[in-house]
Amino acid sequence: MIFDEVVQKAVEETNGGIAAVIMASDGISITQYVKPEKNIDLETLGIEYANLLAEIAKHTEAMEAGSVKEVCLKTDNFLSVIRVLTSEYFIALILQKDGNLGKGRFILRVNAPALLKEL
Amino acid sequence: MIFDEVVQKAVEETNGGIAAVIMASDGISITQYVKPEKNIDLETLGIEYANLLAEIAKHTEAMEAGSVKEVCLKTDNFLSVIRVLTSEYFIALILQKDGNLGKGRFILRVNAPALLKEL
Repeated sequence: MIFDEVVQKAVEETNGGIAAVIMASDGISITQYVKPEKNIDLETLGIEYANLLAEIAKHTEAMEAGSVKEVCLKTDNFLSVIRVLTSEYFIALILQKDGNLGKGRFILRVNAPALLKEL
Repeated sequence: MIFDEVVQKAVEETNGGIAAVIMASDGISITQYVKPEKNIDLETLGIEYANLLAEIAKHTEAMEAGSVKEVCLKTDNFLSVIRVLTSEYFIALILQKDGNLGKGRFILRVNAPALLKEL
């Protein structure tokens, strides 16, 4: 299934890839992939991403910036790329803090059309 | 003054640069620069960025991701890079949607130490 393929590819082909999830904006995931040796509670993380996107959308509306397309987030412990697919779905990729953010963004971007066909 | 220099440099040296602001987390700016021909309400935008960072910080805490260092945001109309300087201050750069996000991030990163000295 294309969803499973893309989340696995995003994690395995990005240096520092830890996990990826395709999720509905209500916080329920379609599919997820966590690198075997990694211990991460992706369900909780995904729900936080869903809430975060909803908050960001409120602010970008207030800013007259239009809809959110992509968010990259660098924190002490992780890098994250969240790509909005439709108004209902997004894909998020989590990397180690020294991971290749550019490669991660690229993989999400080039695979988005295939995901959109199925959503 | 270094603050004025950096906001102007960030806008003028980044392809598609529109505006930049150095702002306290309470939404009051230290300095800002808007490209002469651009019409943008940077005060309002800055306050939205300050609120957005506060919201993101709440979520990254819940995610045990640590403190926010940088946020890149792509919307229908703009690209934005927000770099956290201290717990109290951040710098935000706004670009046209086809602007050079990588260059913008780079300029904020290399100039952060000089700003930190003054904060």
